[in-house]
Amino acid sequence: MQFGIIGSGSWATALAKILTDNNHHINWWIRNSDTISYVQQRRHNPHYLHNAHFDSNMLNMSSSLHYIVEQSDVLVVAVPSAYVHSVFSELNIDAFDNKKIVSAIKGLLPDSNQLFNEFLEKQFNFKLENYFAVVGPCHAEEVAAEKLSYLTFSGIDEEMAKEIATHFHNEYLNTVVNHDIMGVQYAAVLKNIYALGAGIAHGLEYGDNFLSVYIANSAHEMVRFVRKARIDEDGTGLNYAASAYLGDLLVTCYSLYSRNRTFGNMIGKGYSVKTAQLELNMVAEGYNASRSIYHSAQELDVQIPIAQGVYRILWEHVPAAHGFKEIETMLV
Amino acid sequence: MQFGIIGSGSWATALAKILTDNNHHINWWIRNSDTISYVQQRRHNPHYLHNAHFDSNMLNMSSSLHYIVEQSDVLVVAVPSAYVHSVFSELNIDAFDNKKIVSAIKGLLPDSNQLFNEFLEKQFNFKLENYFAVVGPCHAEEVAAEKLSYLTFSGIDEEMAKEIATHFHNEYLNTVVNHDIMGVQYAAVLKNIYALGAGIAHGLEYGDNFLSVYIANSAHEMVRFVRKARIDEDGTGLNYAASAYLGDLLVTCYSLYSRNRTFGNMIGKGYSVKTAQLELNMVAEGYNASRSIYHSAQELDVQIPIAQGVYRILWEHVPAAHGFKEIETMLV
Repeated sequence: MQFGIIGSGSWATALAKILTDNNHHINWWIRNSDTISYVQQRRHNPHYLHNAHFDSNMLNMSSSLHYIVEQSDVLVVAVPSAYVHSVFSELNIDAFDNKKIVSAIKGLLPDSNQLFNEFLEKQFNFKLENYFAVVGPCHAEEVAAEKLSYLTFSGIDEEMAKEIATHFHNEYLNTVVNHDIMGVQYAAVLKNIYALGAGIAHGLEYGDNFLSVYIANSAHEMVRFVRKARIDEDGTGLNYAASAYLGDLLVTCYSLYSRNRTFGNMIGKGYSVKTAQLELNMVAEGYNASRSIYHSAQELDVQIPIAQGVYRILWEHVPAAHGFKEIETMLV
Repeated sequence: MQFGIIGSGSWATALAKILTDNNHHINWWIRNSDTISYVQQRRHNPHYLHNAHFDSNMLNMSSSLHYIVEQSDVLVVAVPSAYVHSVFSELNIDAFDNKKIVSAIKGLLPDSNQLFNEFLEKQFNFKLENYFAVVGPCHAEEVAAEKLSYLTFSGIDEEMAKEIATHFHNEYLNTVVNHDIMGVQYAAVLKNIYALGAGIAHGLEYGDNFLSVYIANSAHEMVRFVRKARIDEDGTGLNYAASAYLGDLLVTCYSLYSRNRTFGNMIGKGYSVKTAQLELNMVAEGYNASRSIYHSAQELDVQIPIAQGVYRILWEHVPAAHGFKEIETMLV
């Protein structure tokens, strides 16, 4: 099984580390050839996870996406969702024939509100049974530090998901497998919205008691959405308190290093969305997600009043304090 | 509805504050008459929650339990579970005739492993339909600071639980009602064990990724136990992601001020149970709970391998690192 990694951010770098630590020679698409030279010379990514060191003999790096795709059986895609359109536009419709794709993309594609598999199915000759998602509570920094983490590999071809997972498993990485390919991806999107909301609540000076009630109720709402998004009728064996769902929500909401939480905290303190973006020099994933998921929820006909409350604060100029007064009344 | 409060710790004091803030004249049993004089003079508890101020006209304090019980319709009991036997030994078997009891006791009674209602039913002419539990993620300090918190009132007489709850509800306190009287009490016990385990994991230098997976899986295990403990067959309307269950677990596991977490952290760092107790000058609730619940789980025939792993570290000299190596394998 020849793996190719597409992307060179912190999560792509962490995944490259895991595979090479497991003695896999990997193909690695990195857009910037200066970055490639740097990794070859210094054996770590110049921009992310400096403590993740690579044996350059294990790396076949190239800035040609066409080449990397061609050389690989399984493509692990870890680029920001906003870049998916531009990155993949150069490939032919049959580029992924006989390939498996493992999505490590976080979030829905902007404008189209698509999950990555929906984009692939529309743009390429590509079928969902060749698609997998890797999700879980996994700060890349902790993977780089070899702190035990859990990743869930999900796909409707659960046997293949299991096989792919074995290549990632090692002494600092435990793997879990399930078949809820739509559910795990939506959970990964929703968690960012709730974490952004947790940041707002913190900024509004709610305490730990409230925060725990808010997060617990968010978990409940997330599961309601995820159940609706399931494509097979068979929910047997699905455990929504597992790491891919509740675990990922918890780490995102409670981590003080979460960008969503930091962004939300500024909103709660009274910053406008624009000012918070300028100040932090980034857009928190939960910001765009809150709008995208609003539309998905309508399509799926599922009620998500907490996420919608966050959406209204971020996109409809509802004052944060007022928005949370409403959220207060929904919690049990 | 004449309320009496039994106990003068931080949680009892917070409950007294809520009721008097809601314009209830309350009866208050405080064992130590010096404490009573102090509260009368200084209008706050000398030992706990100094920022909770009382109008002494609202307080009918006495060190006579017999008197306080007699004067009250609803007794809110907030004494440490270890003192229940000695505190109530002076009362007659019919002391609680026509009384409601609201338990704010945390934990099982030592030696007997009883919930407080089981003790009452055995020692007095007292029936479960007059028994209620008040639970939830509620640091007393945040109640004193009037930070919005949620309390759940549970009882098989759900209508009466609802009526009692209305007397606590105010602008900083939201109330929730359910009928899962056994479930909410066991959840309140179990959460301390998992929080102690979270402290051990932290002491062993597991990271945030792992901690979130551990807590999520603990939530799942807690619900499995709680479902088994339910006394009525009707679980309709029960939401185990609500504040009384998941919310309380989260605040206890994540709060750095949790005594269970602090105690566990020391165990994880290599302290013995004895040394940790001496150093902290207290016993964390989760320590005794882990043994008591071990027996309850056997009676209920429910598997709780995570809680049992924590029990073995605390009571059977299993080294913490070894115990958690086993717990690692159970998580998904």
